[in-house]
Amino acid sequence: MKKTTIEYRVPYADTDQMGVVYYGNYLTFFERARNELMRACGYTYRECEADGVMLPVVHAEVDYKRPAKYDDLLEITAWAEPPKGVRLEIACEVRRKGDPEILVKGFTRHCFVSTETFRPVPPPERFLSVFG
Amino acid sequence: MKKTTIEYRVPYADTDQMGVVYYGNYLTFFERARNELMRACGYTYRECEADGVMLPVVHAEVDYKRPAKYDDLLEITAWAEPPKGVRLEIACEVRRKGDPEILVKGFTRHCFVSTETFRPVPPPERFLSVFG
Amino acid sequence: MKKTTIEYRVPYADTDQMGVVYYGNYLTFFERARNELMRACGYTYRECEADGVMLPVVHAEVDYKRPAKYDDLLEITAWAEPPKGVRLEIACEVRRKGDPEILVKGFTRHCFVSTETFRPVPPPERFLSVFG
Amino acid sequence: MKKTTIEYRVPYADTDQMGVVYYGNYLTFFERARNELMRACGYTYRECEADGVMLPVVHAEVDYKRPAKYDDLLEITAWAEPPKGVRLEIACEVRRKGDPEILVKGFTRHCFVSTETFRPVPPPERFLSVFG
Repeated sequence: MKKTTIEYRVPYADTDQMGVVYYGNYLTFFERARNELMRACGYTYRECEADGVMLPVVHAEVDYKRPAKYDDLLEITAWAEPPKGVRLEIACEVRRKGDPEILVKGFTRHCFVSTETFRPVPPPERFLSVFG
Repeated sequence: MKKTTIEYRVPYADTDQMGVVYYGNYLTFFERARNELMRACGYTYRECEADGVMLPVVHAEVDYKRPAKYDDLLEITAWAEPPKGVRLEIACEVRRKGDPEILVKGFTRHCFVSTETFRPVPPPERFLSVFG
Repeated sequence: MKKTTIEYRVPYADTDQMGVVYYGNYLTFFERARNELMRACGYTYRECEADGVMLPVVHAEVDYKRPAKYDDLLEITAWAEPPKGVRLEIACEVRRKGDPEILVKGFTRHCFVSTETFRPVPPPERFLSVFG
Repeated sequence: MKKTTIEYRVPYADTDQMGVVYYGNYLTFFERARNELMRACGYTYRECEADGVMLPVVHAEVDYKRPAKYDDLLEITAWAEPPKGVRLEIACEVRRKGDPEILVKGFTRHCFVSTETFRPVPPPERFLSVFG
């Protein structure tokens, strides 16, 4: 099971007046890591869409343990379980670079759907050969 | 148990290239409804902070059933369970105005913490008199 | 020349750790007011796109005079000059409700383009009859 | 005059239903480049704030020439003119990596203000020694 870690520097834009990263922005962090996970596996999400299949999120959960702050250099790690039918789960963890403590973790559940009909479809062959 | 519903018009800014509201933005929708829930209860979150207590999110879950789209007039409903110790849960549902179908639902779990020490504290008396 | 003013309550999501609204978010405020300006004129941007014409922003300017803050109830006012050729300018001002002082003002310049070719096109007839 | 270029991969979160990066998000791109410009000069914005001086934006202008798209690897370049009194201007250009064409360019004008009084102050000595 492939794991990918990206680095991400927190801009002011991501913070709120509590002086920490706004809770909703971690879902974008998760997306950034998912994108690079797929690229690292040799099948980008852009290619997946070009093959007629999208992966909208149907469920998300996030645990906020410690806050990330402005200018932190974060490491965001993502990995996928093999898809079950038309469903796929991708887990994510956020840390400060060089610090093993998990700040935030969570996962997203996705459904393979056709870009034309928006209806569930099996994963593309190429996806299975990479993630299956 | 008080319920509050706000109306919200979806701007282009909230959409993504799938033509629907980006999944992370619903956490901001939830926040908008929480803010108005507290205002409707007569104790705004701004007043709560002025009383020295913040309510950071420690856990969030979201179910995405149907997508909201650009220019949709949404109704976002929020309600709170009575706080248990230093924890509080607020549930949210998102619909199109005039349509009973739930598009997205979820909840956030919050912890009462001191604005000075960031450590857990009991809910303010005024909060309990309103939500307890 | 039609003017439209919308009310907008600032969520935590819009703030940054300076305790004020992040400067980039005013461009979304401007968009919210533009959307309602078109609706008030009887021709929504969604209808304009359905007629095959988009209005991407080609230039934007913003003057930041005073900061808006969390939970402020803002009034965002937008008005349009009659389009010149394929160009359109929409001005915006942001105030606190009940306070005449301008917090932020600016404008966006748009180009009428085809939704199919992305090339400049004349404004739709219906647009001219409303804004011309 | 120091120039800094950062790389940035566009997530879905930055796009809108037109299939391109939402116009307001470029102001966050500009901020990301400004942050790294200061770091490259040996004086981070976080250090500047720790020295009691903030740099809020008082004016911003953006020219949108060509759209950036999902999964584009962008290069965002920033450089500063020497500060004039309490004012500072930082210019930015956005390109696709490996392509000289400018997609978006603009600048932000900043004012040096005290983190305590929010009133204009001269640039920190350390800032001048680096940028002056």
